[in-house]
Amino acid sequence: MRLSRYFLPVLKENPAEAQIVSHRYMLRAGMIKQQAAGIYSWLPLGFKVLRRIEQIVHEEQARAGHIPLLMPTLQPADLWRESGRYDDYGQEMLRIKDRQEREMLYGPTNEEMITDIFRSHVGSYKDLPLTLYHIQWKFRDEMRPRFGVMRGREFLMKDGYNFDLTKEDALHAYNRHLVSYLRTYERMGLQAIPMRADSGPIGGDDTHEFLVLAATGESEVFYDSAVTDIRLGQREIDYDDKAQCQAVMEEFTSLYARTDETHDAALFDAIPEERRKSARGIEVGQIFYFGTKYSEPMGATVVTPDGSRVPVHMGSHGIGVSRLLGAIIEASHDDKGIIWPEGVTPFGVGIVNLKQGDSSTDLACEGLYRDLKAKGLDPLYDDRDERAGAKFATMDLIGLPWRITVGPRGIANGKVELTSRRTGVSEEMSAGDAIERLVQIYAGI
Amino acid sequence: MRLSRYFLPVLKENPAEAQIVSHRYMLRAGMIKQQAAGIYSWLPLGFKVLRRIEQIVHEEQARAGHIPLLMPTLQPADLWRESGRYDDYGQEMLRIKDRQEREMLYGPTNEEMITDIFRSHVGSYKDLPLTLYHIQWKFRDEMRPRFGVMRGREFLMKDGYNFDLTKEDALHAYNRHLVSYLRTYERMGLQAIPMRADSGPIGGDDTHEFLVLAATGESEVFYDSAVTDIRLGQREIDYDDKAQCQAVMEEFTSLYARTDETHDAALFDAIPEERRKSARGIEVGQIFYFGTKYSEPMGATVVTPDGSRVPVHMGSHGIGVSRLLGAIIEASHDDKGIIWPEGVTPFGVGIVNLKQGDSSTDLACEGLYRDLKAKGLDPLYDDRDERAGAKFATMDLIGLPWRITVGPRGIANGKVELTSRRTGVSEEMSAGDAIERLVQIYAGI
Repeated sequence: MRLSRYFLPVLKENPAEAQIVSHRYMLRAGMIKQQAAGIYSWLPLGFKVLRRIEQIVHEEQARAGHIPLLMPTLQPADLWRESGRYDDYGQEMLRIKDRQEREMLYGPTNEEMITDIFRSHVGSYKDLPLTLYHIQWKFRDEMRPRFGVMRGREFLMKDGYNFDLTKEDALHAYNRHLVSYLRTYERMGLQAIPMRADSGPIGGDDTHEFLVLAATGESEVFYDSAVTDIRLGQREIDYDDKAQCQAVMEEFTSLYARTDETHDAALFDAIPEERRKSARGIEVGQIFYFGTKYSEPMGATVVTPDGSRVPVHMGSHGIGVSRLLGAIIEASHDDKGIIWPEGVTPFGVGIVNLKQGDSSTDLACEGLYRDLKAKGLDPLYDDRDERAGAKFATMDLIGLPWRITVGPRGIANGKVELTSRRTGVSEEMSAGDAIERLVQIYAGI
Repeated sequence: MRLSRYFLPVLKENPAEAQIVSHRYMLRAGMIKQQAAGIYSWLPLGFKVLRRIEQIVHEEQARAGHIPLLMPTLQPADLWRESGRYDDYGQEMLRIKDRQEREMLYGPTNEEMITDIFRSHVGSYKDLPLTLYHIQWKFRDEMRPRFGVMRGREFLMKDGYNFDLTKEDALHAYNRHLVSYLRTYERMGLQAIPMRADSGPIGGDDTHEFLVLAATGESEVFYDSAVTDIRLGQREIDYDDKAQCQAVMEEFTSLYARTDETHDAALFDAIPEERRKSARGIEVGQIFYFGTKYSEPMGATVVTPDGSRVPVHMGSHGIGVSRLLGAIIEASHDDKGIIWPEGVTPFGVGIVNLKQGDSSTDLACEGLYRDLKAKGLDPLYDDRDERAGAKFATMDLIGLPWRITVGPRGIANGKVELTSRRTGVSEEMSAGDAIERLVQIYAGI
């Protein structure tokens, strides 16, 4: 993309309404625009990151064998009466009447609807196990929406639902989700720690939240610092292997790590003092096992091998897709702007032309732009007639992890400069070597 | 995908509520499930086609130089008061009050919001031309939703908006959209004819609708049959070339083709009688030029080269993404089911194992499945323990354009059978040749 033809309305000033750094940078980098309290437009740069995150979620769900579908944003109230949650849910549920005075709502979650889909179409144990998920906009009518997309009212969520014959199978689905979420977050350059949590309005016995440690997090968390040393990394996972998923789950959840809702001071005090940590965390996902809480009242049953009919065991599993942008920025920025991890960056590399209009630098930039595109590195070429300082400031603010700077002096020596946004380190090399280096970096992502 | 692990709830019976063939087949093929009047869940097969259509739209928009963003589903009423449309819009607009009693609405279209984004961030002619678009769920509270996704209430639409300094530039944007829409529809295997139409609540002087001829269409159309002989085909288009876009526009719109709203009997009668046609059509898109209708009242202005300030010239351009599934099926089916064009098929090829459990056919199918996946052909392998007839019926119903049949007799001779869903013609060949044939077919799509 050429910046002269893109729509990237960066702001020079810090917006007064933004209290936390991710909100500030998302506004300043032209990623979002507020349209009403807690309701945002995703401007081109923000939308591009949102799509990358969505894509990673889809890929990791496919790897775990989960099947995508899409449920609508609006739901009939009657479905929620069957589970008993219509009255329970309170004012955070946005209730709507259509022109025929039918009661509807803007879905805050989809346990009822997915259970309805299941009971309408599945009747035999032979069709299990089954996990269905979607990525869809939700609405939660927060009293005080704040912190930009971190606590918006209209937000994008991945929510998945498993249907299993037995509790044992459903707990495997729980473990499978835990493992696949760890991989999902790691691909985004995030460390999200599974912590024992409270089940809230979803209900159920077992639940873990995934928290990203950040000073601006809304939750207080308590943990054994050894938990931050564990990574999934590149290990091969067979998501059908119950023992393997169970082992990974235990590895990641045996050490003490809890939110304030489930914090146990006695257990915490048993941790060696130097490893006892409390901090703030941003919740970026949650998994639940809740057994037959929805399948029983809603009649989602299957015939078992012995011919009897039983309600299925279920769980639900969510990732806060739009909120993840905020969480990633909270975890990865400096005083000049955002620092995108390679896995989610909106563009692979920025090209800064130090002397726009100079025929040799223009020519070099055009060649570089074409070659980077051909390699699939998705460059953003700042071809505006601007001072070098302004171009650098924009690149630093929007946070592309790599920048190639092209100037007349370097061109005379056959060199460009490759700069890491994270370390600030620059290296001179030929354009061909810079491209090769970037190809290698992104091949590992 | 292995069918045994997929969620494809096909129905044996024709659903009583479905009056048209696309609605019937989408229900029977397990593509959609109605959740309320005019509101559908997209089951996995339907969602997969929806994503393919969305992808084609994104690719063709990128080719035309249009920039994607995403506006929210809910909008504040105040924006619509600025344009004067809040009161005009009537009961089709779903109006909502949040917990603070603020007036909101579920967006039926986005002229106001995109104009708000533009005026907040753009102030100079130097930032023009600019075309922004999104693909987002809309709501239109139809009195009588019917025909499945063809006339739903919650529906997915691509809507794009151009901002230009002059009327001439805006008319180029109009032509550019017309050309890029032609390519978009052709990639989906559809012929959509641009017809002079009425501008309705969007307003403006110039507008064309794109109509797919089908007996179940909601519009009556009148046209010169010669218009159905024109194709964009593979010709190279430079979307920045005003003269070229203008020429294509004229080529496609000079012959008589109008909906009943703008039909002119005198002009129609001037067509040679044997080319005079009237038929039914399904509207799958519409483009508008409306000048300063929104920019003026909403103050979307730019500074011109001579320092004055003028409202921008705008147009809006829509493609009915979810409705396209219905339109494609109406245009491409037979009495056994859907016949997907290769450009939008949910899976590239189906594999039917005639003797599940037989070690040689199972082995051959597994190898074929693996090789097809490796070639990116996205196979659906029917690995269920079912009769051959039931497997064929399912493949015919869901409409994959190609099927490979694997049976013990063929395997003994080193052959499989490749069958075209459209022609019904089968050919025996080696598995390797079948794969090679499919690679060639899909390379041309």
